[in-house]
Amino acid sequence: MSKPIILVTNDDGVMAPGIRNLINFMCDLGQVVVVAPDKPQSGMGHAVTIEKPIRLEELHIEGTYRAYSCSGTPVDCVKLAVTKVLHRKPDLLVSGINHGSNASINVIYSGTMSAAIEGAMESIPSIGFSLTDYRLDANFLPSKNIVQQIARNALTQGLPSGVCLNVNIPAVPENEIKGVRICRQAKGNWREEFDHRKDPRGRDYYWLTGTFQLHENSSETDEWALASKFVSIVPVQFDFTAHQIIPSLSKWQFNV
Amino acid sequence: MSKPIILVTNDDGVMAPGIRNLINFMCDLGQVVVVAPDKPQSGMGHAVTIEKPIRLEELHIEGTYRAYSCSGTPVDCVKLAVTKVLHRKPDLLVSGINHGSNASINVIYSGTMSAAIEGAMESIPSIGFSLTDYRLDANFLPSKNIVQQIARNALTQGLPSGVCLNVNIPAVPENEIKGVRICRQAKGNWREEFDHRKDPRGRDYYWLTGTFQLHENSSETDEWALASKFVSIVPVQFDFTAHQIIPSLSKWQFNV
Repeated sequence: MSKPIILVTNDDGVMAPGIRNLINFMCDLGQVVVVAPDKPQSGMGHAVTIEKPIRLEELHIEGTYRAYSCSGTPVDCVKLAVTKVLHRKPDLLVSGINHGSNASINVIYSGTMSAAIEGAMESIPSIGFSLTDYRLDANFLPSKNIVQQIARNALTQGLPSGVCLNVNIPAVPENEIKGVRICRQAKGNWREEFDHRKDPRGRDYYWLTGTFQLHENSSETDEWALASKFVSIVPVQFDFTAHQIIPSLSKWQFNV
Repeated sequence: MSKPIILVTNDDGVMAPGIRNLINFMCDLGQVVVVAPDKPQSGMGHAVTIEKPIRLEELHIEGTYRAYSCSGTPVDCVKLAVTKVLHRKPDLLVSGINHGSNASINVIYSGTMSAAIEGAMESIPSIGFSLTDYRLDANFLPSKNIVQQIARNALTQGLPSGVCLNVNIPAVPENEIKGVRICRQAKGNWREEFDHRKDPRGRDYYWLTGTFQLHENSSETDEWALASKFVSIVPVQFDFTAHQIIPSLSKWQFNV
């Protein structure tokens, strides 16, 4: 039987240690093709590049079948990989390993997760992996076992239609990881704290910064799992409809 | 009683006819503050600007209380408006009117809708409006009545917590609009067709293009409503968890 084709991407850029570790982990499982951004694309959400053209540049990355850096967003990488590099759907798409958590509301801002969501939209079993350590020199090796297990599960069992996985891994030594929890996205948001400065010509500018605010502590959530040293897996869908709200809105009266 | 404060933004840029019409429509309803991108930001999804600083520039737009162009994304505009311009939450956030449909899967790529989703995340009643006409010279006037009615409903009744509205308006004469339907997001996606070219130095580049593929024709969906000349309203949530999938995933076995 031929090896499965595994597409690897991320949002921290193709040079990031997180994707280099993920590539190594995936080489044990299949034939790896990399299409990843040529520069950091954190916080790009589900952006696509339509105002300018996109470039692909072939790279040599040991152990991979093919590897490219892409001038576009993580979502562009997935679209280009399927259409112009593979000319078919891969058997698995993995994105990451992100330097930093994508739990709770971070899923919505994350380029890592948007790549996985785009994969799900194309009916590809897709997983975003993140480690709760923002540092460039974060240690990804303790993630190897669980990342490979989750990827193997997705390869052998597939994933339900319309769903990808948001996997977050606590940055603790491997022997301290308590297990795996299937969770829901915790309620939380970012409290903005723009850093307001003046440039040398006296003009104002702002740096976006902020603090994450967690609004609940239910043991059903990804944030609870991570704080308790579990790996969290949230199934993520791209149907954004708030189905439960439709009946109440249907009572609104319009004069058309 | 003081007039409600209405924040207006979009993704086509502050100069687009769509936002200029929306500003005019909102001036009948409250005190209008505009913070909108200084250039087109279509397809930016939920991107935020973290790799570079953001600038705000004050503009004069007739009828508004205050207006700014912002160098960031639509989501940046909302965050800056609340934190640095208003120093409070507006009573209503409206985004658009987008030049072109944001029905079905387009909600996920749309900067217009991401601004509204960001508003909902900040507990602001928020609505994204789109007209199904991509042209710069689209006629927005037939939308006035329904846009004002929906905005008035949201101002007087509020919106359920955690939800914003994705409103799409068919580009037909006002007397042909059949009514308003509360819908779910239709199943569909984009089939990519990258336009592959060579630059004058012989290097490859790609333009992202594609064709929208509708996968169903249920009368519960926004696409059906629009094709039938109804205004579609989809309640949109930012909890991306596929709650219905959690039980089946919980059967996966891990060796940790």
